[in-house]
Amino acid sequence: MDEITFAVLGTGGIGRRALEVSQHKDHLTPVAACDRHGTAIDFDGFDVDELLAATEGNIDSEPRDDGVATDGGTGATPADGEGGVKQHGEDRGVVASEQARSSADPIQDIIDHGDGIDAVLLALPNYEHDFIPRTADRFVEGGYSGVMIDVLKRSRVIDMLDDRSDAFEDAGITFVCGAGATPGLLTGAAALAAQSFVEVESVDIWWGVGLKSGYEDNRGTVREDIAHLPEYDIETARDLSEAEIEAIIDDHDGVIEFEDMEHADDVLLERAGICAAEDVSVGGILDVHSDEKPTTTTVSVTGRTFDGETATNTFQLGDETSMEANVNGPALGYLRAGVRRNRAGEYGVVGPAELMPGF
Amino acid sequence: MDEITFAVLGTGGIGRRALEVSQHKDHLTPVAACDRHGTAIDFDGFDVDELLAATEGNIDSEPRDDGVATDGGTGATPADGEGGVKQHGEDRGVVASEQARSSADPIQDIIDHGDGIDAVLLALPNYEHDFIPRTADRFVEGGYSGVMIDVLKRSRVIDMLDDRSDAFEDAGITFVCGAGATPGLLTGAAALAAQSFVEVESVDIWWGVGLKSGYEDNRGTVREDIAHLPEYDIETARDLSEAEIEAIIDDHDGVIEFEDMEHADDVLLERAGICAAEDVSVGGILDVHSDEKPTTTTVSVTGRTFDGETATNTFQLGDETSMEANVNGPALGYLRAGVRRNRAGEYGVVGPAELMPGF
Repeated sequence: MDEITFAVLGTGGIGRRALEVSQHKDHLTPVAACDRHGTAIDFDGFDVDELLAATEGNIDSEPRDDGVATDGGTGATPADGEGGVKQHGEDRGVVASEQARSSADPIQDIIDHGDGIDAVLLALPNYEHDFIPRTADRFVEGGYSGVMIDVLKRSRVIDMLDDRSDAFEDAGITFVCGAGATPGLLTGAAALAAQSFVEVESVDIWWGVGLKSGYEDNRGTVREDIAHLPEYDIETARDLSEAEIEAIIDDHDGVIEFEDMEHADDVLLERAGICAAEDVSVGGILDVHSDEKPTTTTVSVTGRTFDGETATNTFQLGDETSMEANVNGPALGYLRAGVRRNRAGEYGVVGPAELMPGF
Repeated sequence: MDEITFAVLGTGGIGRRALEVSQHKDHLTPVAACDRHGTAIDFDGFDVDELLAATEGNIDSEPRDDGVATDGGTGATPADGEGGVKQHGEDRGVVASEQARSSADPIQDIIDHGDGIDAVLLALPNYEHDFIPRTADRFVEGGYSGVMIDVLKRSRVIDMLDDRSDAFEDAGITFVCGAGATPGLLTGAAALAAQSFVEVESVDIWWGVGLKSGYEDNRGTVREDIAHLPEYDIETARDLSEAEIEAIIDDHDGVIEFEDMEHADDVLLERAGICAAEDVSVGGILDVHSDEKPTTTTVSVTGRTFDGETATNTFQLGDETSMEANVNGPALGYLRAGVRRNRAGEYGVVGPAELMPGF
């Protein structure tokens, strides 16, 4: 495998963990990271430990629409106007790292250095449907060519990215969408499990997440999950204060069950030709009062074989694997697969299932 | 997905089932098939039903070394010198189909028509270590460029193919090796399951096959399996008569358990960087007296996460999925993936795990 350099947009829970996991990977060098306040760029590769230590607690679950979400700071309510970011000396967010400097336009910094960056991981919460697509637009306009990859969850965002397919083709961008745990690892598992069948009848994805100690680092994810509850949607969840989110969690005694979530697995499996989007269901249980998973994450793919049998293939994640492990390993795995495609001249939008054997 | 044409070398159990399964796949057209006796070529696509009906019972578990194994005929012992092939009028083997004609050199027929064939599935038993590699040599020498794909099981054959890597590169051949059930589907599942981990400690593949009604069609596979028993090897299993194989099966009351099999999953996972070959173990149970699987086929991948946990991810095949379903669906899936790579200009030898997200 050739050397791969990558940038992380957002230094919150996902961005920081991606940097950490990348230290375990050969030939994968993080060379740029940014949040709303600043940028770190070093083509010799970061001192990841320093950057992680300096930005510890860099979580902001509040939505932003000023280019790049900070993912920095905790505890602020939207009424603050400015996300509370962990203070380190005079600087905030990624700028707390000695490898970073403050910037008026961090995303432009990354784009300006795009020639040296093989892949850009968009580790941004996507409160507004078009936030990640709009960020992609900036990279297209800025002349970037290479891989862009996100871990988004919402089905409808895929269509917005698809609308940009021609622009990505022209720019030489391979956009890998929905490449975390689910969608991502579990979507790929479903695509692989489908290989026994000539027709897939249903794909059921059922996840369990225990997020006690990881809660502080993953407030944005919890907010996104709440948006999947029947009583909420993206807009109303976006407007919730931290206190209101805590109240919702308390109402559920810390354990929230989700059914029929709008999760991009459905459209990603359909576009790979595995099954119709409506045959995919996603649900799960989130427990923020325990690190034990409340249920075993399981993908069940039921189909019909060429010889007329109906059967169910299953993929299960060990209960000891954290959400962070199941998001960031696959994200970097799909990033590599995307770079390989990009270097072979394959541009446009691809989902995880399309990086599997054809169905 | 663009249109793909493919050829099948060997019209025994695997070759015939691959043709059958391909009928359920869009954009995948079988245009050539051969056995030792003849060749069928039709670039408009076969009448697969006619070909399958005409060649029913076309099984030969006897090894051949005269270019292409017939996979035609049953019940002959090596002493016959000539595999007994189902007779249809005056013709034998694939020639029983009205779409085929007899040939003195069926492989050369396929090579001569290689320009119209995107992929060649080598559905040949591989009694001699170098049989598939030597067949590949013929395609290289004949100027073929495209995908070659096999469902071989033996670890040592991968090295022999690797020795030809430069020749494949020069020829424009993408050779996908070990792309059936195991190695193949289960190897890919192991590679995907590894994504939760930063270090894989072990991969355990445990299969169950119930082969009562499929036994006649899969004598070659059973012979290959027997070669994995401690008392036998490839050479001694190759020399067994059908009667001796029946005696071995009877000695085990039809249920044979295998441990520490030499299965190419190990080297295929190592070359994809998932784990060391010695950390992979493969075993299973074959029951030729029942169509029920004697055990559930399971891949268990144990590893360490970036956050220090040890866990096991598992992939299980539904007991109702037949060996044929789990070999041929994945073979055609990997064939498609191989064609995509080939068209992007990626040549050489790749295993199933390398067609997964990078580890």
